[in-house]
Amino acid sequence: MKNKSFEIAKKQSKLWEYDLSQNPNKYRVLTGDRPTGNLHLGHYFGSIVNRLKLQSLGIETYILIADYQVLTDRDIFNDNSNYVYELALDYLACGLDPGNYKTHIFPHSHIPELNQLTIPFLTLVSSSELNKNPTVKEEITASGMNTINAGMYIYPVHQAADILFCKSNVVPVGKDQLPHIELTRKIAKRFNKKFNSNIFPEPVALFTNSPLILGLDGVQKMSKSRNNSIRIKATADETVKLIKSAKTDSNRRISYDPVNRPEVSNLLKLASLCSDKNPIDIADEVGDQGSGKLKQITAEAINTYFEPIRDKRKELEKNKDYVRDILHKGISKARKTAIETLSEVTEVMNMKI
Amino acid sequence: MKNKSFEIAKKQSKLWEYDLSQNPNKYRVLTGDRPTGNLHLGHYFGSIVNRLKLQSLGIETYILIADYQVLTDRDIFNDNSNYVYELALDYLACGLDPGNYKTHIFPHSHIPELNQLTIPFLTLVSSSELNKNPTVKEEITASGMNTINAGMYIYPVHQAADILFCKSNVVPVGKDQLPHIELTRKIAKRFNKKFNSNIFPEPVALFTNSPLILGLDGVQKMSKSRNNSIRIKATADETVKLIKSAKTDSNRRISYDPVNRPEVSNLLKLASLCSDKNPIDIADEVGDQGSGKLKQITAEAINTYFEPIRDKRKELEKNKDYVRDILHKGISKARKTAIETLSEVTEVMNMKI
Repeated sequence: MKNKSFEIAKKQSKLWEYDLSQNPNKYRVLTGDRPTGNLHLGHYFGSIVNRLKLQSLGIETYILIADYQVLTDRDIFNDNSNYVYELALDYLACGLDPGNYKTHIFPHSHIPELNQLTIPFLTLVSSSELNKNPTVKEEITASGMNTINAGMYIYPVHQAADILFCKSNVVPVGKDQLPHIELTRKIAKRFNKKFNSNIFPEPVALFTNSPLILGLDGVQKMSKSRNNSIRIKATADETVKLIKSAKTDSNRRISYDPVNRPEVSNLLKLASLCSDKNPIDIADEVGDQGSGKLKQITAEAINTYFEPIRDKRKELEKNKDYVRDILHKGISKARKTAIETLSEVTEVMNMKI
Repeated sequence: MKNKSFEIAKKQSKLWEYDLSQNPNKYRVLTGDRPTGNLHLGHYFGSIVNRLKLQSLGIETYILIADYQVLTDRDIFNDNSNYVYELALDYLACGLDPGNYKTHIFPHSHIPELNQLTIPFLTLVSSSELNKNPTVKEEITASGMNTINAGMYIYPVHQAADILFCKSNVVPVGKDQLPHIELTRKIAKRFNKKFNSNIFPEPVALFTNSPLILGLDGVQKMSKSRNNSIRIKATADETVKLIKSAKTDSNRRISYDPVNRPEVSNLLKLASLCSDKNPIDIADEVGDQGSGKLKQITAEAINTYFEPIRDKRKELEKNKDYVRDILHKGISKARKTAIETLSEVTEVMNMKI
């Protein structure tokens, strides 16, 4: 059943994707990340590339840095604002451009009117619905306890506020996020019905055609916490070193075979994404020169591709005030939007004074 | 155990009460009501009189109108803002006076920075702590379901934000509210400890010496929902009529005996509160003239006592703009306070940009 709803959502997603390119002004996208470390190549090809595509279509995009969400499962907080800067630096270096007035980057902790929406939204959801949420369930299992903090428990509702405060109607997501989008749709629908209004759209999930990038272990998805990633901001030397440490197999003849040779194929995929060459052609190029040669080609391709991004990042790093200014502009725009939405909400709830 | 902690809190409460009168500037009080209808005589003698006392001591008091909280267990919302006005009218008529710059009346739905505090606070509380909350448990039992809406579920945490946003250190409460104050103290303590700060006081419960006013049925506590109440704003005629309908007993000899004659004794108590005469003396005065006479004396005493309050209310009713202005000033003050507190919170969480 769950897979069926995923397949339906995926099919619908294709239709939206087409319409996005045809009618960019109809759409408003909400996307974002948790500020827990620098972005890596998995983020870049899995998500940033799609955001750049939406940006080039001229679609308004709110990029939310979920700094409060980090509190739900981490106890560290000494570096919160620094993580926000680092994330913003990664975005800007990659070409996400608030200068176009359609891309807004901001941490949600700075938008009180967004956070306030969580309170009325909570009254539209039952605690048993939250109990059933798979992410919450997983978290309980992972923590080995039969309790979690209440922030984690209600976080899907807070996320609905993240999405709906700007009346976003498209949310790029991975499969595991689908239940959250479904809850957000329910909240939007219930709010509109109960308060006899039409304030909130029911946002659709956009499953983008992004490749799965494995980590340097060639087994698991690239992830900072699995210590198998290459950061976008890594230097060329670091990149060579990391790629050299990547797991491969002993067959000197290189071939693209993701099922039987996931490690080698993942390097081919990375080299391909960074060079626009077909991974099969790259494999032929390496021939039987073994994984050493493959690694050399892959590292070179990555370094060539990311050189301008890394250079831009270094320039931006020198100008913290500029980055702060970008964030302040993003906060200012997001607040304006949130204030307008909350005002409409207060109006239809007959709470204006 | 629960009763023991109540007894301890009650004893401590006596000490605070003394210190309040000696050091009024050390204290900041948070109190309030849900806007679900007009205040009645039970509210007046149970709570308003105490607020007037605090006001006369010069203690800063935030009077919060919990309009969002109404959403947790009611589906009606057409009259939300009108209920807020009505409540403000009742407060002002009774003599709560924002003109002294120490009494602030405001609905919490208009204070985004207060509501935002709920989000980090939720991460300091476990869902099993919320499951154990007696008010939540009761609500589940009362609703006959094994689920409640998530707004009701987390409402003790929202209430902690209500109390802590203004760094209130004294909260006048009834016994049933004690678990909420205890949770608020826990949240304040945990926040301060985790973020190595001293932002929040641990507020104490103030059990005030207020008489229990029964309804006209002479059985249950006076309550709007039990339809056994006399509103402060009732006219003299309505009051006479309502008192005439009050339940009494058939013994023509009137005596003050709350245990065996609760209905008659409740009328004597009301007459006493409105006249500063001892209820036993009033009973003697009525002698064996029966409940008719008792009712006449009680209605007269109530009408005499509330006449200036009702007159003032009628004047205020003509000037809705004045009442709106009071609320706007209260909102403005509460927001200023909430913005300051949230700014400190953001600072110690290292989330400043």
